Formats: sequence, C-alpha cells, structure tokens
Amino acid sequence: MDQKPTILVVNDDGYEASGLEALVEVARQHGHVTVIAPNSSRSGSGHGITMSRPLRIKLYKKKNGVNYYRTSGTPVDCVKLGQKVVLRNQKIDLVLSGINHGSNSSVSLLYSGTMAAAIEASFENLKSVGFSLLNYSSQADFSASKIFVDKIITEVLAHEMPPFICLNVNIPKLPLENIRGIKITRQAPGFWNEDLEERFDPFGRPYYWLAGHLEETDPQEGTCQWALRNGYVSVQPVQFDMTAHQYISSLNFIEK
Amino acid sequence: MDQKPTILVVNDDGYEASGLEALVEVARQHGHVTVIAPNSSRSGSGHGITMSRPLRIKLYKKKNGVNYYRTSGTPVDCVKLGQKVVLRNQKIDLVLSGINHGSNSSVSLLYSGTMAAAIEASFENLKSVGFSLLNYSSQADFSASKIFVDKIITEVLAHEMPPFICLNVNIPKLPLENIRGIKITRQAPGFWNEDLEERFDPFGRPYYWLAGHLEETDPQEGTCQWALRNGYVSVQPVQFDMTAHQYISSLNFIEK
Repeated sequence: MDQKPTILVVNDDGYEASGLEALVEVARQHGHVTVIAPNSSRSGSGHGITMSRPLRIKLYKKKNGVNYYRTSGTPVDCVKLGQKVVLRNQKIDLVLSGINHGSNSSVSLLYSGTMAAAIEASFENLKSVGFSLLNYSSQADFSASKIFVDKIITEVLAHEMPPFICLNVNIPKLPLENIRGIKITRQAPGFWNEDLEERFDPFGRPYYWLAGHLEETDPQEGTCQWALRNGYVSVQPVQFDMTAHQYISSLNFIEK
Repeated sequence: MDQKPTILVVNDDGYEASGLEALVEVARQHGHVTVIAPNSSRSGSGHGITMSRPLRIKLYKKKNGVNYYRTSGTPVDCVKLGQKVVLRNQKIDLVLSGINHGSNSSVSLLYSGTMAAAIEASFENLKSVGFSLLNYSSQADFSASKIFVDKIITEVLAHEMPPFICLNVNIPKLPLENIRGIKITRQAPGFWNEDLEERFDPFGRPYYWLAGHLEETDPQEGTCQWALRNGYVSVQPVQFDMTAHQYISSLNFIEK
C-alpha cells in the first residue's frame, strides 16, 4: 500500500514563479504533490478570498507525476480549491506555500498571501508551512533555500505538530555556507512606513504607488528579524486567535 | 482652539454602502470626519494591499462638513491613503471601519477587509474600531447599531486604550429592545466550511462559487459567537502578534 503523504503546494507569486518550482522539486521527494497556483501574481493579497466572482481552475501541466493547476483565485482560494475540489476525496497531509520571492517577517506576515494560504490550512488543523526567501528578484537563487525547505519538511512530516498552527519560514539571502542554522522565533513588532509618492499620469491625474520600508519598533533578540539579521533561518509558529487576551478585563468600562 | 478629534472613516463594502453612511452619521457627532472608501465592494479582501497597480483617489462628495473620497484600493489602502496622503499633516485620533454588512466574528475576522483596516491602524498605535452588523442585506436597518456605535466611540475617545490593539465589534441582528448589552469577548475557534458547488457556464466550462457556513469547534461561553447567540454586542480586543508563543519551546526539534 502506498504510504506517501499527499502534499498540496500553493503560492502567491503565481504559477510561473521560479520559487514555486523550487518548492515542488523538494516537495516531490516527500510525497504525492498537487500544485494549485494563482494565474498571476497575488503578492500582498493577505487573507483575501474571491466572493464577487466565480472561481476558475484549470489543469495546465503534468510533469514528474505532479498535476499543476492554475486559478483565478487568491492564495487562500488555492487552499480551499485544493480541499474541496481537486483533492476532495483525499486526506491532505501537508500544505506548503511559496517559496515566496521576498520577506514575510514581522507584520509582513499579515499582508502576505503566501502565509495566508498556510494559515487557511491551519484553520482545519492541516500541517502547513509557508516559505519565503529574502530576495525579491524573479531570478532569485533558491539553491540554499531548498536545503532548508527539505530539512523542515522532513521534520514536520516526522513529528506530531502543535494543533492549529502553521510555520512562517523566512530564509536569509545568503550563500549556504554563511547561513548559521535555524532559530524558532517570535514575530518582530513593527509596521510598514510608506512614502506614497504622488505622480501624474499623461492626463494630469494623480496616482500613488505603495512602497516603503519596515520599521521595527522593538528589535530584540529572539524575533524573526533578529534571526534573519544574524544569518539564521527564522521559523515562527503562527496561530490565528487574534484576541488580545491580556486586555479583556481592562476593557470592562465598555460593558457598562 | 478647536479640540474636536480627527476621525478617519473607512469600510470594505464600498462608498455606496448604507453602513458607511450610518457610521458617518454617528462619527460626525464626535469629531472632524474624513471618509475614504473603496470604489466598489471589497468584501473578503483580508489584509490585502495594492502592489501591482498604482492607487487612485478622488474627492467625490462634501456633505455636512465631511469630505468623502473613493479609491481604487483595498480597505487597508484606505487607511494608508488617509495617513500618508489625505490627512498627512494631521494627527488621526480615531479610525473607524464599517459598519460592515455581515458578521466578522470568529475566523471571519481574518477574511474581513473591515477588520483589516482597523488592524492596519493599530500597527501604528492609532485607536481603531471595526463595526459589523449581522445582516448581509444592503437594506439593513442600522438604527439599533448606531446606538451602540455611539456608545463605543464615546468610551474609546474618553479612555486610554491598551497599546497596539483595535476592537472588533459585532452587533446582533435584533431590535434595540432585544439587545441585552455589550460583552468583551475572545475569538471563537472555528473555520468556514465551503461547498464550492460546480456549475457550468454557457460554453461548458466549470466554475465555482465560494459559499459556506462557519463551523464553531469549541462553542464556549465568553467567545464572540456565544455573545452574539445570546443577544449581546460582542467587543473583541484584537492584537496582531500571530506568534504561537506557547509552542516556541516545543518546536526546538526543528533547530537541530
């Protein structure tokens, strides 16, 4: 009997991204892989879903035993389509998202389509991991990343994982010999500070590009940003209860 | 000297939604209001931002001293445009999002554009509240909601709030006399169970609609869902550190 795990691979950079293919190359060493990717880049799509239009999905490639689908939907939709349409009669053992071109550390986690897909899988207690390399280039070199992706997939499949969590893995843009190892981290406090520079189109109308940089508000040891700055792969366990439990009792003035 | 608070009002249902106007009617009793709303419905847009296209924004109405802008962006973009373009020289005292047509309790919080806008404001420690009425109708009656919105705005402006949090306010679909009060709550564990029914277009090609229902996995007293089921307005304090702190030490097998 075939005991190989069923693995769903998704991303947010779209079906043509080289980070997707890098992840598939590693994943298929570990199980039966199905790919579902957006039909264009969905960077920064957060936990968005497609509600006002129907979803389309199409098998566009079969290669090395892997079925590749592309969809009109978001990264989160890819996970829903995987569970409810493409693999609806199968138990999914692992959901992998990425490898994202660019960082998803600190609050970038919340903007990230890559991580939203992993979080979506954790809603139903599926094991899931989102991978990001700190290199925005479409020509990024994923060779060192693949070593760590392989190691982390091996550990996640071999171990019981805590319930209802996923992993946010960020890999520094360094050659393999300069990466010092893996650290389990917490989310670095911070925010994105945007410029929103005003430009004018040929018709004299203004427009703005969202561009900026991450500002860390408390750059302590143990955070994702600290690990990456110091040459480590950051692995942050992520949970989706966003309640500020510590403040429930102090807000009782609102109940009066 | 004018001491009235500067209030930014945004939403995810778009600039024509009646819930937006209901929120503005209450908000302008409390301060100087500026409205920035998406130019169409952005329900379910999560923490999505606009990265692949430039942002457009246009002043489309002035009424009762309120400037109304609409934008090509998402709810989160509305907050960024408010801070960096429209109100760039002013301190924003309060960001209000909604009133959403439909629930944002349990994990709907993560799919919600309404709440993402409030969370975005909390990244920079602005006071912010997202409001939702459990009524998806575009003709929803916001009269009872407005009483609670008024009360909550009053309390939030009058008190020091905990740092880096926002409030997720959900209001039951009940007449005022049947609402039993306000409860400070925690996020109910659960997930959305979708059908993804297959249909075929006139050309024989399949498509799928995302539709489903929330499944609560632990329907305990004290959660948002419990409060709403029992006739209370649910006020959940929300924070954006998604680290599963309790599992950091148990994942050290990955560091090896």
